[in-house]
Formats: sequence, C-alpha cells, structure tokens
Amino acid sequence: MPCAILPIGAVEAHGPHLPLGTDNLLAERLARRLAERTDSFVLPTLPYGQVWSLQNFPGSINVSNEALVRMLYDIGESLVRQGFRIFVMLNGHLGNAVALKEAARLLYRDYPELKVYYFFYPGAKEAINEVRESPSSHSSYFHACELETSYMLYLAEEHVDMSRAISDPPEIGLEADCTPTPWETFTQTAVLGDATLAAKEKGERIIEATLAAMTAMIQEAKQRIHTGKEK
Amino acid sequence: MPCAILPIGAVEAHGPHLPLGTDNLLAERLARRLAERTDSFVLPTLPYGQVWSLQNFPGSINVSNEALVRMLYDIGESLVRQGFRIFVMLNGHLGNAVALKEAARLLYRDYPELKVYYFFYPGAKEAINEVRESPSSHSSYFHACELETSYMLYLAEEHVDMSRAISDPPEIGLEADCTPTPWETFTQTAVLGDATLAAKEKGERIIEATLAAMTAMIQEAKQRIHTGKEK
Amino acid sequence: MPCAILPIGAVEAHGPHLPLGTDNLLAERLARRLAERTDSFVLPTLPYGQVWSLQNFPGSINVSNEALVRMLYDIGESLVRQGFRIFVMLNGHLGNAVALKEAARLLYRDYPELKVYYFFYPGAKEAINEVRESPSSHSSYFHACELETSYMLYLAEEHVDMSRAISDPPEIGLEADCTPTPWETFTQTAVLGDATLAAKEKGERIIEATLAAMTAMIQEAKQRIHTGKEK
Amino acid sequence: MPCAILPIGAVEAHGPHLPLGTDNLLAERLARRLAERTDSFVLPTLPYGQVWSLQNFPGSINVSNEALVRMLYDIGESLVRQGFRIFVMLNGHLGNAVALKEAARLLYRDYPELKVYYFFYPGAKEAINEVRESPSSHSSYFHACELETSYMLYLAEEHVDMSRAISDPPEIGLEADCTPTPWETFTQTAVLGDATLAAKEKGERIIEATLAAMTAMIQEAKQRIHTGKEK
Amino acid sequence: MPCAILPIGAVEAHGPHLPLGTDNLLAERLARRLAERTDSFVLPTLPYGQVWSLQNFPGSINVSNEALVRMLYDIGESLVRQGFRIFVMLNGHLGNAVALKEAARLLYRDYPELKVYYFFYPGAKEAINEVRESPSSHSSYFHACELETSYMLYLAEEHVDMSRAISDPPEIGLEADCTPTPWETFTQTAVLGDATLAAKEKGERIIEATLAAMTAMIQEAKQRIHTGKEK
Amino acid sequence: MPCAILPIGAVEAHGPHLPLGTDNLLAERLARRLAERTDSFVLPTLPYGQVWSLQNFPGSINVSNEALVRMLYDIGESLVRQGFRIFVMLNGHLGNAVALKEAARLLYRDYPELKVYYFFYPGAKEAINEVRESPSSHSSYFHACELETSYMLYLAEEHVDMSRAISDPPEIGLEADCTPTPWETFTQTAVLGDATLAAKEKGERIIEATLAAMTAMIQEAKQRIHTGKEK
Repeated sequence: MPCAILPIGAVEAHGPHLPLGTDNLLAERLARRLAERTDSFVLPTLPYGQVWSLQNFPGSINVSNEALVRMLYDIGESLVRQGFRIFVMLNGHLGNAVALKEAARLLYRDYPELKVYYFFYPGAKEAINEVRESPSSHSSYFHACELETSYMLYLAEEHVDMSRAISDPPEIGLEADCTPTPWETFTQTAVLGDATLAAKEKGERIIEATLAAMTAMIQEAKQRIHTGKEK
Repeated sequence: MPCAILPIGAVEAHGPHLPLGTDNLLAERLARRLAERTDSFVLPTLPYGQVWSLQNFPGSINVSNEALVRMLYDIGESLVRQGFRIFVMLNGHLGNAVALKEAARLLYRDYPELKVYYFFYPGAKEAINEVRESPSSHSSYFHACELETSYMLYLAEEHVDMSRAISDPPEIGLEADCTPTPWETFTQTAVLGDATLAAKEKGERIIEATLAAMTAMIQEAKQRIHTGKEK
Repeated sequence: MPCAILPIGAVEAHGPHLPLGTDNLLAERLARRLAERTDSFVLPTLPYGQVWSLQNFPGSINVSNEALVRMLYDIGESLVRQGFRIFVMLNGHLGNAVALKEAARLLYRDYPELKVYYFFYPGAKEAINEVRESPSSHSSYFHACELETSYMLYLAEEHVDMSRAISDPPEIGLEADCTPTPWETFTQTAVLGDATLAAKEKGERIIEATLAAMTAMIQEAKQRIHTGKEK
Repeated sequence: MPCAILPIGAVEAHGPHLPLGTDNLLAERLARRLAERTDSFVLPTLPYGQVWSLQNFPGSINVSNEALVRMLYDIGESLVRQGFRIFVMLNGHLGNAVALKEAARLLYRDYPELKVYYFFYPGAKEAINEVRESPSSHSSYFHACELETSYMLYLAEEHVDMSRAISDPPEIGLEADCTPTPWETFTQTAVLGDATLAAKEKGERIIEATLAAMTAMIQEAKQRIHTGKEK
Repeated sequence: MPCAILPIGAVEAHGPHLPLGTDNLLAERLARRLAERTDSFVLPTLPYGQVWSLQNFPGSINVSNEALVRMLYDIGESLVRQGFRIFVMLNGHLGNAVALKEAARLLYRDYPELKVYYFFYPGAKEAINEVRESPSSHSSYFHACELETSYMLYLAEEHVDMSRAISDPPEIGLEADCTPTPWETFTQTAVLGDATLAAKEKGERIIEATLAAMTAMIQEAKQRIHTGKEK
Repeated sequence: MPCAILPIGAVEAHGPHLPLGTDNLLAERLARRLAERTDSFVLPTLPYGQVWSLQNFPGSINVSNEALVRMLYDIGESLVRQGFRIFVMLNGHLGNAVALKEAARLLYRDYPELKVYYFFYPGAKEAINEVRESPSSHSSYFHACELETSYMLYLAEEHVDMSRAISDPPEIGLEADCTPTPWETFTQTAVLGDATLAAKEKGERIIEATLAAMTAMIQEAKQRIHTGKEK
C-alpha cells in the first residue's frame, strides 16, 4: 500500500527572524514525521511555490500556478505508474493551495485509482485557538507570526533567530480580499502579527494536532484501499 | 469615472426549493443595486461557472477555470480599451473565486490602470453572525441553506418555493478540504443546512451589509482615481 | 430524447436604433420559440462573443475565439454527462461562427454520441431574397440593417427605436475580405445598409422560415436517435 | 518595398483525375505569376493544411488550425524582422481560411507595420458566373469540379487526367452547414460537381481575373506604403 | 507495410555558395533515394524549421519548436489513420532535432503502433572521418562547410556555386554551448569551416553510408512488423 | 553583480550502487563549490527532471519538458526582478538539457539583461579522455558508469556503495538515436558501463576541470557586466 509524500514550500521573505526557506523546512520536516507514522516514502522537496503576494520582497521567488499544476500533475502521474496508491502533497505555503487543489482534481479525473491529498495544517484549528495569544491578522493568512514561528521553533529551531523576532501586526482592510493586493501595501516586514510570542510548546501542540489528523486520514485511506472500499 | 459591473454566477443544483440559476439571480440583482448606488454600468450576466463539486447533480453545468479566466480576462481587456477604470466582477458562486482572482491578477499585471474587484459577499460576516440561527456546515461553503435562501427571499423572492424548503445539514469531514470530494459524498439534496429557517429579513440584513461594504470600496476607488492617487 | 438550446450572442454596437445586446436578444428569443416547437430546454444565454471587427466601437466587448471554444466545449461536455443527446448552439452573431464550428468539431471528436448544431439563421435565404428591398452590403455580413432590424421588430420590438433608424450603406471593397479590416474602415455608424426599410412582417417571414428549418433538423435528429440510426 | 508570397495548400483527395497535391500546385503556380507581376519573393510552399472534411478519404493529411496558426504567425514574425512590409498568404485550399484569418489578425495586433493578405481566389466571382456551365453544389465549397479542374488545366495541365474526370454532383443538405459533417456523408468521389466540363479557357478566364485583383491590391498597398499612408 | 517519408528542412542562410533552401533540397533528395530503396511514399517537404541560431541572417525564416511539434504530430496522426505503420521524418536541419524527437515521443505515447523515425544523417560518422580534410568547427554543428557542401554537390549540384565557396572556420568558444548564442557572435558568413574542400565524391561517400544505414533500419522495422514482433 | 545558481537534477534509477537522487546530489554539490569560487548565491535544488528514457525503471519520476520550461522561466523572471544579472542553471541530468536551453532562450528574448547559463559538465572533455579506462557506451549518454560514479565518489562519497557497483555495458544500436527508445530496451540495470572502475581521483580530475571552466565563464561574464560590455 505504498504512499508517497511530497513536501512543497516556497522561497519567500519571512521577516528578520526566519529564513527565506521557512516553508520548505516546515513542509519537509512535517513530511518526515508523517512518513514515520504512516510508513510512507518522502519525496524530495519541491522548493518553489506561488508567491504572488510577497514577490516584491527581497529574496522571494515566484512561480506561476500553471507551472506548479503541470509539475505536480506529472509527478502524480509517475507515481501512479510506479504503483503508488496514495499521493500526499504536504504544503508549507498557503499560496500553493490553488495549484495543489487543481492538480489534485486533474489527477482525480485521469487517475481515480490514486488517492491525492493536499495538506496545509489540517485539523489544527482547535489547538491554535487554545495556544494563540495574539489576535489573527487575517481570517486565512498567517505568516512569520506567533503561529508560524512557533512551528519553526518546534520543527526547525536551529533556523530561528528569536533575537530578531518582532511584532508588527498589520491592518489588512476588507479590500485586500477583493482586489489584487501585494503585501507591501500593508506590511514592510512580512511579519503578520507578533512573532515574539512564539514558543516551541505552542508549535508542538499545533503540529502534533495536525500530524495526528493527517496520520488518521492516511491510515483510513490505507484501510479503505486494503479492504477494497476505495476504488 | 466609468465603472462596469459584471454579474457572474453558475447553473447548479440548489435543492428542491431554489432554481438552478440561483447564483445568477443573486449576482444579477446585487449588481443592479450596487450599480444604482455607485452610478455604474451593469454588464450582461455571465451565467456559467466552475461547478466541479456539484457537477454530478442533475442540472449542473460545469465550466473549467481555464475557460473562465480567459473569458474574464478578455472582457476586462475590452473594458480598458473602452475607457473603463473600474471593473467589478460580482460573483454569486463560491466555486468561481479561484478563476476570478486569477483573472484579476492577470489584468493587474497587464493593465495596472484598471482597478479590478472580485466580490463574493464582502463585509457580510458580522451581519451573518447576528442573524444566523442554524450552525454553519462548513467554514467557507454555504449553499441553498438558511443564508442563501434568505438572500433569495430578499432579492428574488418569486423564484423561491419555501414549501419545498428542507433541513438537511451534512456532516462534512476534515477530509473534504484535503482531497477531491464531490458533494454527493456528503449530501443527496445539495442543501447544506436548514433552509426552513430562511427569512427575507435575514437576507435583507446581510445583503444590505455587503452592499454597503461594496459601495464604500467603489466610492473610495473612484475618489482615489479622481484625485490621482490611484495610478 | 433531451435537447438543450444555448443562445449565444454578443455585446456590440448596432447603430443608433438598436441596443448593444441585439444579438443576445435575437438568440434568446429565437431559442425560446425553437424550444417550444421541439420540446427542448433553453439554457441561459452566453452573452459575450467574438467582436473583433467592431471592437473599437463604443460599447463593444470582444472575447477571443479561444475563450469561446473552451467554454462551449465545457458546456457541451457537461450536457453529455447530464444525459443530453442534442446540443444546439443558437447563434445571433456571425463573428461567433468560427468558434462554434471549432467547438462542435471538438465535441464531435470526443463525444460522438452528442449531436451538436450551430445555427445562424439556417434556411432563411429564400425568404430573404423575397422580402429584401435594399441591396446587400456584403456577401456574408449583415448588421443593424434592413434584415437585422426586421428580425428585431418581429422578436424584440420593444428594444427598437425606429425613429433613430438610418440608411448608411457602406462601400466594402474586395480588400476587406483579404486583410484584417476593422469596420471603422468603412462605416462610422455600424449600420450596414438601410435600417429604415425594416418591417416586422419582413422579420416574421424570415424568422419563421429559419425556425421551420431548425425545427425540421432537430425533429429529424430526434427521430434518428429514437430509431437508433444516429449512433 | 519587399513583398513575400507564401503559397499554402493541402494534401487532400481530389477525385480520380486530380492529384492529392492539387491545392499545393494551384497555390504555388498562382504565387509565381503574382510574384512576377508584383516584383515579390515566393517563399517555399507550406504543403499541409486543415483537411477536416476530407480527412477520412485515402491520401488526405489533416493538420489542425492550431498548428497552422502558430506556424503562419512565426513565418510572419520572421518576415517582419527581415524587413518585409507585405506578407501574402496565397491559399489554395478553403479549409485553411480560418487559420489564415486568425494568423493575420494576430500579426495585425502585434506587428501593425506588416500588411498581411490572405487570398483565396479574390475577385473571381464575375468571371466564374460567366464561364460556369454546371450548377454550384454549395454556396462556398467547390472541389475537384468544373471550376477547380479548369484552374488546374490552366496552371498545371500536366497533372490533370481528363480521361478520368467524372460528374458526381452531390446533394448537400442544409444540415451540412449546421453540424460537423465529414464529406463522406454526401460524396464517395470527392468530386463536388461535373469535372468533365472543365476547360483550360475557363480556368484562364477566372485565374486571370483573380490575378488581376490580387495584383491591384498589392500594388495599391505598395503605393500606400511608399507614400506613407500605410502606417 | 506502408512507410511514409517526410522531408523536413529549413529556410536559412548558407553562405554565398549555397541557397537558402539547402536543407530542404538535401532532405527532399535524400528522401527520394531512401524511398526508392525501401518502397516508401515521399510526402511533400515541410520547408520551415527551427532556425533560432541563424534567425538574424538575411533570408532566414524561423519557426518555433511548438509550431513544428504540433504540425508533425498532426501529420503523424493522419498517417496512422491512413494505415501507415512507419513514419520517417527525414531531417535536413540540425535545429529541428528537438522538435522531431518531441513529436516522435508524443506519437509513441498516443500511437504505439506507429514506428516513428527522426533521421539526421545517421550512420555517417565513419565515412565522415574518412573523407573529411578540414577540422570540425564544433562537436555537433556543421553548416555550409566541407561536409554540407559535399552533400549538396552529390545530391543537388545544380544549386551549388563553388566559385563563391569560401573558407571561414570560426572560433566557437565553450560558452556557445552554455548560453543562448546567436551565430552572428562567431561568424559573419554562416560558413562553419572550409567549403572550398567540398567534393562530390566526399558527399557520395557519406550520403551513401547514411542511406545504407537508414535503409537497413527501415527494412528491419518492416520485417519486425511483418513478423509481428513490433506491436 | 549578483549571480544565482540553481541546481537541477532528477529522481531516477542509477543502478544498485547509486541513489535515486544522484543527479540532485551532483548538481547541488557542484553548485556549492561553484558558488564559493564565484561569490554566488545557491538556490534550493529543483529535484525533478525530464526522465523519459528511464521512466519505467523503479523509483524514477518523470516531469515533462513543458513543466520544466515554465518553472525555470518563472524562476528566471523572479531573479531579474530581484536584481540578479546572472542566472546559472547547474544541471546534473542530461535529460533536462532540452528544457534548460528552451527556458534560457525564452529568458534571453524577454530579459536580455539577464545572462543565463545552462551547465552540464562543460569543459570536461579533455580530463575525461585522460582518466577514462572503460569505453563510452554512447556518444552523449553516460549514466551510473565509471564517470558518474567517479563524480559521486568525489562529491558525495557517502552516498555510493561501491560494493554493489557492477559492470554492465550495453549495446546501444544506431536506432536508439533515431526512434523513441526507452532504456529498458538495452539495459536492465541502468548502468551504462563499468562502475567498478570508478575512482575518487578520476572524479576529482574531471569535476575540477569543469569547475574551472564554469568559474572562468562566470568571472568573464561578471567582468563584461562590470565594464558595461554586456548589455
């Protein structure tokens, strides 16, 4: 019942205390832990993502949805041919979500025998609500803030420089969800919140919650495939 | 300061009490009200949308993101050439959101002098929280439920048959956000909630809130263009 | 034996006496009459078309062949999946003809079980020859002239302002068929002929002729499908 | 004032008396004569065309509109860069008309300084009406019939075997213009008329008429470019 | 066991002593000889190729890989439908190699029953080493030099003007293989070597060697198809 | 004078003694050494490549040229916007060569101010000829053989298991360069030669030669940019 996990992140500005490759580190280390718990293969990290919003910040590298969709589709197609039945795209960067969903739908259409997941911290909501101290800057974005910095402290502490962590919560108006809005419109630091409140324990709490959720989904999928309930 | 409003909806199953064209009716009537308040032109409704999730329900017609993006881009390009400075895509169907955002970003890249909005009930959250009686079935989906039926009662009452309204709240598991999941997986009626709780007054409250929010954004954009603050 | 009729028109300048949406009105009303006679469904009108020739006239909105082909293909594909066997694209705008034919051929290749029609006033020639008083400005174009205005008087009289009808027959040289030629090259009014000669009776004569021709084709297709002669 | 002429034809069944390459021969020889009269360059013949209608006949080779448009666009772009101001696509095959017009419009948009012509026997109507003895089988198609065979007798007599010429006028119903209709539906020979009536003199009359029309258009274009009236 | 041979060349500068259509002449005449020896059909020459490197030289016409791949794929698809089992792309221009290989792989994926060859002087190495007197200017390019001129002297002598042959061997640095490098960077004449050393006998030696190699491959393919070893 | 180096490899079978990620390891470690010598940035490795030939071997993941070209183009475009003037694609896998060259040409057309290199062991020929003991299996392919294994021993020794190294030189016929030929046609091990002859010193000799060549090209490019000779 082979399962392959593809970490996918981005090269993107993450404020003064986190590296450009934050999303890649998170995706990759989450992938390794998930693989251990689910007896899966970890594929090499795809380190380029759709970074439209922050593309004008120093160090960001933006890749189009079109390029991502095509590459993810091709990887999925190869996995089918290699006999895999579960393909997990473990996403560390929200901007990739559209491309991952599109690629998954295309694979679903052409290779229904392949179960495709796109994971972006599923099942973390409750834990987040419990540990978060600073308010959220946006209903769906979080970036280089209390949350993401906590994830890094738990998963890649050696890449975090908490001495440079800042609090810079932006005002993100309603319009940002209604018209193309590069993030330099509302932040100069790319830190969407208060990174100084980050803590390894907070990260652990949330990351373990999402790992449990992802593990459960994969185990159930394996079970369904094993019993023939999944086509 | 010409502003053009394009209503865009979908042809999609909406349960026994609402017509297939519900999203088109909502987009079109919202557009007319918004146009009155902002002195804008209403373009003919684009009545076909991305209906992947419900494409297997009787009466649904699904159009690809690719087709939508291209058509919306072309319409925007024509509007620029005709001298418009504001292009509002007034969306009545959540499934269109990806295509609208992509088209808006392409237009932003190629025609920065055109302000492009994609509106899907912006600024309605507070009003929704106040009037809603039934719980939400999903963090972002609402469909043929207390909310959407209320919108219809306020904007297109003659197309609602409340005698056929039902309550059929589904269990939507975490997996539905992580893998391609056609809605027949969790609902047979396409009614994501309790339509019997719909009321015209609820619709009025929410619709007027979003109309106010949209009107404010357009008025400010006009002001910025007028004073030359918008490039 | 379900048959679906899609009206498709355009937003395009039609002189001082006809609205921008003339082609949409014609397509839509023809579709309704044809549906009554053939027991078919009428789909929502697709109101944007390929308007290359008149794209520089005030009010025109041009959509590329590529966008049209893709959207029409997607609609046809959905219809097949919904069980339709006949898909009629009822066209009110000559500029759409290339896209419709291309979409029909693609559907024919991929879904041979779907009979696809693209109708642009078929079977009207004899009636036209009988009623027309003004000469034709071009071997295949007619626009906002005696003919089209007559169609409108018969099908959508409330949208015609005959007090503003003019006669402005252009000289269209041979070169217009041999090199890209926007219509502002030969007309300032977009009226390709003498609209003052339009008459409801002329429109009735022609429209009824084409309705009869379209009805006959659909009925025969239904018969062939019923008897299994159509694959 | 360099002018380049590209002959474009097709490989397509032309009945028992004409070769598969009839359209290539006609395009090429017309091009040479036109070049002599207008002091133009003749490019190598592009011998593959869109042959959808006859693709199931022995010997036909069909190329998509997409491939043709792209190749014609590329050739035009190279010509602009080489300093040409007039690009004539001399077409010997009606099925290519859509692709040629589309390529010409794309070049017109991107390289307005290049005058692009797509010629398919322009200005021949009067001469045709005078010499034709057999009725036309279709309002726009002619193929391997009295007309085309006459063209061949005038331009490429050595490739015509009149001893095998036949008369096989088909009944082409109205539906053939309204739904995808491969020609095997109405003809087994691909001869759309009476080839036995072909005559070199008829060909000469028509070909000379169209050559005169094409020559006039090119000369006028050169004059306009010379005097700076053409941008 | 029908086999079709498509000559494909280019329009490209070939120095003062060779015509722009050199690659077309070579491909076409090689094709004819190969056809005689293998009882194959020769298709009309596709005379436009990918000429990126020399596109800025007078007379060159450049066509994109994309256009070539699409057209070659379409031709191959038609051949399959016409019953061919072997499709030989006989290439006279190195710049086409990428497009030919890509088209062949696409056909291999979609039509495995069609054997597709892309030939660019296969099996000529030994003969070249024997007859060549001037050093090679580049490990894979040869152009208008001792070799190609010798080919022309053997296959199309009437198109060679040896009185204008020159020796102009360029220095082609390592960088030319590592970064986009138009050939005007290292040559003004497009003669990559010493054309004065060309000789008909040298051409004969090499051309006959490659003809023998191509003939052997086709004969073996026919044999495999005949015995059912080729699927 | 910022210079960015992108390592690009592949996931591909490399025989029993080398890992699937061999090409990624080689590209990445070469990139680091090259960056040190040229004061450049190393971007995250793009670990998926075009693996058509070995796609049917266990563990291979194949990505299309189209996906690669698009992603490489996007990365290059971001680099230009970030102020880079030199973009080095450091390639560890021959199958990527077509995509890299195409992407480089597109960037050259659209961003001529960006110098783009595609490096696949340039300048190594002489050193190879000196150290190689086993014959080459093919004029351009080398794979998991004496050469590539030597590279690994020098750059990533900890990933080589010489106890499993084998000698399995294939017979690669002329046809493999003339028709689509998956490598399982001529090898079962993917070892194109004699891996047992690999030696760290051989690798050092060749790798240092190519590093010197690449370093020289980049230094010269920087010099040209500095002195304004490069546009």
